[in-house]
Amino acid sequence: MEVNRITTQKTLGNVETKFFTFACPPEELILESGEKLGSVTLAYETYGTLNVQKSNAILVLHALSGDAHAAGLSKTDDVLGWWNDLIGPGKGIDTNRYYVICSNVLGGCRGSTGPSSVNPKTGKPYGADFPLITIGDMVKAQTRLIDHLGISKLLAVIGGSMGGMQVLQWMVAYPSRIQSAIPIATTLKHTPQQIAFNEVGRQAVMADPNWKRGNYYGEAVPAKGLAVARMIGHITYMSDASMAEKFGRRTRTEKEPFKFSADFEVEGYLHYRGDNFVKRFDANSYLYITKALDLFNILNGHRLVDVFHNLKAKVFVIAFKSDWLYPAYQAQEIVKACKLAGVNASYCEISSTYGHDAFLLETVQETQIIQDFLESVSNGNGNGAEHV
Amino acid sequence: MEVNRITTQKTLGNVETKFFTFACPPEELILESGEKLGSVTLAYETYGTLNVQKSNAILVLHALSGDAHAAGLSKTDDVLGWWNDLIGPGKGIDTNRYYVICSNVLGGCRGSTGPSSVNPKTGKPYGADFPLITIGDMVKAQTRLIDHLGISKLLAVIGGSMGGMQVLQWMVAYPSRIQSAIPIATTLKHTPQQIAFNEVGRQAVMADPNWKRGNYYGEAVPAKGLAVARMIGHITYMSDASMAEKFGRRTRTEKEPFKFSADFEVEGYLHYRGDNFVKRFDANSYLYITKALDLFNILNGHRLVDVFHNLKAKVFVIAFKSDWLYPAYQAQEIVKACKLAGVNASYCEISSTYGHDAFLLETVQETQIIQDFLESVSNGNGNGAEHV
Repeated sequence: MEVNRITTQKTLGNVETKFFTFACPPEELILESGEKLGSVTLAYETYGTLNVQKSNAILVLHALSGDAHAAGLSKTDDVLGWWNDLIGPGKGIDTNRYYVICSNVLGGCRGSTGPSSVNPKTGKPYGADFPLITIGDMVKAQTRLIDHLGISKLLAVIGGSMGGMQVLQWMVAYPSRIQSAIPIATTLKHTPQQIAFNEVGRQAVMADPNWKRGNYYGEAVPAKGLAVARMIGHITYMSDASMAEKFGRRTRTEKEPFKFSADFEVEGYLHYRGDNFVKRFDANSYLYITKALDLFNILNGHRLVDVFHNLKAKVFVIAFKSDWLYPAYQAQEIVKACKLAGVNASYCEISSTYGHDAFLLETVQETQIIQDFLESVSNGNGNGAEHV
Repeated sequence: MEVNRITTQKTLGNVETKFFTFACPPEELILESGEKLGSVTLAYETYGTLNVQKSNAILVLHALSGDAHAAGLSKTDDVLGWWNDLIGPGKGIDTNRYYVICSNVLGGCRGSTGPSSVNPKTGKPYGADFPLITIGDMVKAQTRLIDHLGISKLLAVIGGSMGGMQVLQWMVAYPSRIQSAIPIATTLKHTPQQIAFNEVGRQAVMADPNWKRGNYYGEAVPAKGLAVARMIGHITYMSDASMAEKFGRRTRTEKEPFKFSADFEVEGYLHYRGDNFVKRFDANSYLYITKALDLFNILNGHRLVDVFHNLKAKVFVIAFKSDWLYPAYQAQEIVKACKLAGVNASYCEISSTYGHDAFLLETVQETQIIQDFLESVSNGNGNGAEHV
């Protein structure tokens, strides 16, 4: 309770999403697949003030269903940011000291260019004509935004789950542009189990007759399929223990007459989360982004000992004990790769029963360790607002 | 390799499925829901010979997608039984000594009465008019078959997963009719995580427009929805480690041109298992049986200390280390309940990376411990073929 009260008091006020457009033809973005994409828009938000040296910028990277609205109260819909408990004045990522940037990923549907955007060649939404994108492409697009903001080196890149993969991508592809990196609840490469869960989600979407090979814009969306996909996702984000704590075998008081209606609270919860997701997320973006996750393998062609060999940044890897979707052993592999390359890396495994969702929920524990880490990076480099 | 060779040599020859019909109107089977069902047919197979004392009968209970064909080579389609490596002459459940019975569950679609059976009142398949059934109803129907075979007391009841729940049901509802019980890879009650996985499977089936609220017989079946449900199931039957061993991140050699086709071997495998399942399983049976699983709570109204208080049978609980769908802690709860009731119970946790599927695959390890246990039960009671 105390924590919530403090959190609310210290929340950033109204924030606004901005848009940056680049890679306009004939200078399209060249993707990993070789295909060209342009023009590209990234939706982004910034919190705090960039210092004169432009050395206090932290890039926050979101997960599968996240967006640019990481903190504060959205001007348009009054919604709090998805990591509001961690980002704000005096918080774990202190906007009094740091300039925080968060952008919606390429391929997304929350303001950035994705399959629901209009294809300039046809005047219609891309749909399945949108090119395959990778975590590498998402990060490449982010470098353009960082250039645009006049920042040559980020104080830190931080993110959980898919956000953590983007952190790893920054570490490998742009090592000289980051002073530190905090990959959370993530992996060096998607495992077959992680791929499998995504694939059944995609199959659920594509089995929906409303999907129509991606050409459903302006018509009924594949809501049932996307809801099933999201329900599968939610099970993997929680844990056996957190579900037992939250729902047990409690049944719903208002039962529908149909025999296969949701009897148990856990079923009702999943329906609610599935239906809610459909309202704010595009099914094609779900396909493209999950595919990007599955294609992710930062080791691609590298040995574990080599993958971070160019990296001078300080690294802090965080995992959660009950996370079975991105288990702690996978985070430990990241630490091992760092150590093998002589990278200054530390590791924290947080006790939590929340499962993978812990990276969004265990903000009190995260606050302390992230604050300390950023402090050490910031002081070690003469950064931070007190020096401005 | 050695094991396989021996297994093949000792397989029962051709076996045949038989059918037993009972509960004919006006003497219908009264279900737990209070609804009446009749007439009821159970498909079943038997292996070995019932001794004169009728004291060497072992009832084998199948899991969600199993059937009566547990061992030997089916006369009709040349398929080996689902537990063929464990049941046969000289095997873990030795058909030279024991009379083995296995029946397809009530609600199933492999010869026993279920939603695809003809409703005598309408002359059409039941579809969603089939009454809700429970694990208790499945076992109640089995008692009729056992009566029909003239057996008053079973030497053992044995089964994994849903089969294990039926074992627990026998222990609670018919304690005087069993001399021993072997629940494997199972739980006292379905947890919210287990319910959640089943519920998304059901949602996938019901989202398929071919489902038509269960009235699809004679038309296109909800194949896509059922395949998605089965794919979800298969992920939960394996383990992170077994998937990594079996597939890694290997990609398929023959790729389809579509960008969301199955690139990875694990995806191709899941598609194959999903498509295969649709050919042999009825979508409505999937809904009814998964619902029976979710409703299962052997503690219903009992305290842990009381649930097995009437039981004189010897109990042997088996679990597998990598099984995360029915984790070992849930098997340990069964042992605890037995011990609290003064039941003679032992426990074995088998090392395996196969996940939940281990109960079907770790037959070499199971053979030794089950053979010994049955031997002790059999000798303790003067049973076994050598006394016939």
